[in-house]
Amino acid sequence: MTKPGIFEITHRDPGTSARRGRLSTAHGVVDTPVFMPVGTQATVKGLTPDEVAGEGFRVVLGNTYHLSERPGSDVIEKCGGLHRFMGWPHAILTDSGGFQVFSLSGLRRITDLGVEFQSHVDGGSRFLGPIEAMDIQRKLGSDIAMAFDECPPYPCTREYACQAVERTLAWAVKCANQPRADGQLLFGIVQGGIYEDLRRRCGRELVDLGFDGYAVGGVSVGEPEEALIRGLECGIAELPEDRPRYLMGVGLLPQMVEAVARGVDMFDCVMPTRYARNGTAFTSEGRYPVKAAIYGRDERPLEEGCTCYTCLRFSRAYIRHLLNVNEMLGARLLTLHNLHRYAVSMDEIREAIENGTFGEYRKEFTGRYCDIRLEHETAMNQTEGTSG
Amino acid sequence: MTKPGIFEITHRDPGTSARRGRLSTAHGVVDTPVFMPVGTQATVKGLTPDEVAGEGFRVVLGNTYHLSERPGSDVIEKCGGLHRFMGWPHAILTDSGGFQVFSLSGLRRITDLGVEFQSHVDGGSRFLGPIEAMDIQRKLGSDIAMAFDECPPYPCTREYACQAVERTLAWAVKCANQPRADGQLLFGIVQGGIYEDLRRRCGRELVDLGFDGYAVGGVSVGEPEEALIRGLECGIAELPEDRPRYLMGVGLLPQMVEAVARGVDMFDCVMPTRYARNGTAFTSEGRYPVKAAIYGRDERPLEEGCTCYTCLRFSRAYIRHLLNVNEMLGARLLTLHNLHRYAVSMDEIREAIENGTFGEYRKEFTGRYCDIRLEHETAMNQTEGTSG
Repeated sequence: MTKPGIFEITHRDPGTSARRGRLSTAHGVVDTPVFMPVGTQATVKGLTPDEVAGEGFRVVLGNTYHLSERPGSDVIEKCGGLHRFMGWPHAILTDSGGFQVFSLSGLRRITDLGVEFQSHVDGGSRFLGPIEAMDIQRKLGSDIAMAFDECPPYPCTREYACQAVERTLAWAVKCANQPRADGQLLFGIVQGGIYEDLRRRCGRELVDLGFDGYAVGGVSVGEPEEALIRGLECGIAELPEDRPRYLMGVGLLPQMVEAVARGVDMFDCVMPTRYARNGTAFTSEGRYPVKAAIYGRDERPLEEGCTCYTCLRFSRAYIRHLLNVNEMLGARLLTLHNLHRYAVSMDEIREAIENGTFGEYRKEFTGRYCDIRLEHETAMNQTEGTSG
Repeated sequence: MTKPGIFEITHRDPGTSARRGRLSTAHGVVDTPVFMPVGTQATVKGLTPDEVAGEGFRVVLGNTYHLSERPGSDVIEKCGGLHRFMGWPHAILTDSGGFQVFSLSGLRRITDLGVEFQSHVDGGSRFLGPIEAMDIQRKLGSDIAMAFDECPPYPCTREYACQAVERTLAWAVKCANQPRADGQLLFGIVQGGIYEDLRRRCGRELVDLGFDGYAVGGVSVGEPEEALIRGLECGIAELPEDRPRYLMGVGLLPQMVEAVARGVDMFDCVMPTRYARNGTAFTSEGRYPVKAAIYGRDERPLEEGCTCYTCLRFSRAYIRHLLNVNEMLGARLLTLHNLHRYAVSMDEIREAIENGTFGEYRKEFTGRYCDIRLEHETAMNQTEGTSG
C-alpha cells in the first residue's frame, strides 16, 4: 500500500489549471478530481455503504460535531472507529465541526481556546476547539482530518474576516501539534472571506506550517457566484502545486467544472443527496422537480439513457408517487440516481483531463447544462394536484 | 404455467389442521402457509422489490383505497398495472379498501350501495362500494382481489355485527359479478365479529357463492387474544378444505403459529415493517427495542446467528444510532431484518408441516418465544440518554 498522503498528479490539462491525480489514504487511493458524498451522521442518508461504493465513490464525509453529539466519539472509538461503525471500508474525511458550530448552534462565545456554544440536539452547553476537534477526529479514525477553523458568515466586515483568519491560523498550529490516528492526514483550511489579501495571507501561512492538503473554506456560504469563484481563486493562489486542494461545500456541477479548471481536486456538497430528499432530480443537462404534475403518468426513467439502479427499474411516475406520499423509497431511489449522476460527471471530468480534452468538455458542459431546464420550467410553476 | 386459482395441498399435519400448499396466481406460485409483507402505497416501506423478493417473499399486499387516492387507479392502469408500476414481478393481493374506509376515514354514511366517506388525504368526499372497489382492483391488475366488506369495530353489538354480515354478503354477490383483470382471483371475507353463529352463517353463504379463497376479517381489531382465536375458529369452521384461507391483519409470530395449527394458509400484517420504523427488532425469541441505551455500545448484530443483510454487516450500536438520529437507513436496515425473521419463521413452519413435525415445532416455538424477552425488560424500562 502506498503511504498515506502521497499525492501523485498523473495528468495536467494544457489549457487550464485542471489536474488529474491520485491521493493515497490509509483506506485506499482516491482518484481526483473527486466528489465526496456527505455522510454527516455516519451514513449517506438513505443508502448503504455498498450502494455508495457501487456508484464508484471511494471517499465520504463524516462530521466531527454531529458525531460527537450522537452517538459520541467514545462510542465510535469503542466500536472500532468510524469505518467499522458505519461499515465503510474506503476513505473518510471528517469535517472539523467548525462550520457546524458557527452555522448550526445558538448562542456562542469565541475565545482563543475555541467556541462555547449550544448543542442543536439538547440545547446544552458544549465546547469545541482545536484540541477537542482533533481528539474527536483521532477517535473517529478518519483518513483525512480537517483543522478546526473559524468560518465567518457572508457578508462580514474586513475586521471580522481578519480576526477569523488570525484564529484559524492559531488553531491550525494547535491542530498540527495534536496526536492523530494511524496514517491520518491533516488538511488546513484557508479562510479570509471576500478579502483577497486575507485569503492569500492565510494560504501562505498555512503552507509555511505544512499540511497534507489544503481546503478553501467559507466560499459557499450564500455569496453570489462570482464572489465564490473569486474567493476560490484567491484561496488557492498561494497553495503548493503538489498538494491536494479541497473546495469545501461546493457544489453544483457547473461550479465544480469551473473549480477544476482552476486547479481544485476535491469537493463535497449535500446538494445531490439533500435535493433528492426534496424531490429534485439531477441530469446531465440540469435539474428538475420530479413531484411536478406533468410527470404523473410519465413512464420514462428519471433520466433517459441513465444506467443507474433507479433508472433501469422505475419510472418518473412511480418515483413521483413515492415522493408525493412521503414513502422513504422515493428519497432513496432519487438519492441513488443523483449520486450516480455526480459520479458519472466526475468520471467524465477525470477522463477529459487524461485525454487532454478538458477545455472542450468544459465548453460543451457549460453549453448543455442549465441549472433548471427550460423544458421543465412549466413543471416548476405548476401547482401540485392531489392525484393524477 | 398452472392456471391461476389452483390450490394444491401437498402435506397435512397429522396432529393439527395445519396444511402445506401451493397457490397458483397469474404472477407465479405462492407457497403456503405464507406471510405477505404489506406494501400499502405500492412499496413495502423503505425497501426495493429486489430486497423483498431477496428475502424469499413471492406475494405482497397493495391497498385499493390508498392507491385510489394516490396516485389514482387510472394512473396505475396507464402505467401498465401495479406490478409494472412498482417493479414487482411476483404476486400481489389487494385489500378491498373496506377496512381502511371504516378505520381511517372521518364522517361516513353507509348505504346498500357502499360507503360515502371523507378522504384522509384532502378531506374531500369519496364513495367506495363493491362496484368501485372491484373496478379499482381490476385497473390495478392484482392477482388476488378482495371482496368489498363491512368491517365492524371491536366491541360491537350483535345487531351491528348482524347488519355488517348482511351487507358484506350482499356486496360479495355484487363483487362476484363485476369484471376482473386477466387471471385475477377473488376472495370473499367472513365477518361476524365475536358472534359465532354470525361468523358461521357468513362463511356458509360465501361458500355457496363460490370464491377462489376465503378470508377471515375483523379478527385483529383490538380484541383480546382469546377472542381473536375464537373469531378465527368460527370464521373458518364453514370454509372448504380445498380453498386457501387468509387471516387478515394477523400478525404476531405466535398468533400465526396458532392460526396455522387451525388451518390458516395466508397472513398479512404491518407489524414487522411498522415496528421496524419504531425501532423494534424481531428475533427468533421475541422482540426488543433497539433504541434502548444498553445497546449503545453493543457490537453484536441485531440477532446473533442471523444471516440477513443487516446482521451480516452492522451492529446494534450502529442501528441504534441511526434510529436515534432519525436516519432513514436505520428503519430500512431494521425492516430488512424483521422481514427476514418472518421469512425464516414461515420457512420453518412450512418445513415442519412437510416433515410431519409441526406439533413439535409449535410446542418448541411457544416455549422459546416471548413477546418481550425478559433479558430485554430492563431495556424497555430504561430512559433514553442523549448519547452513549
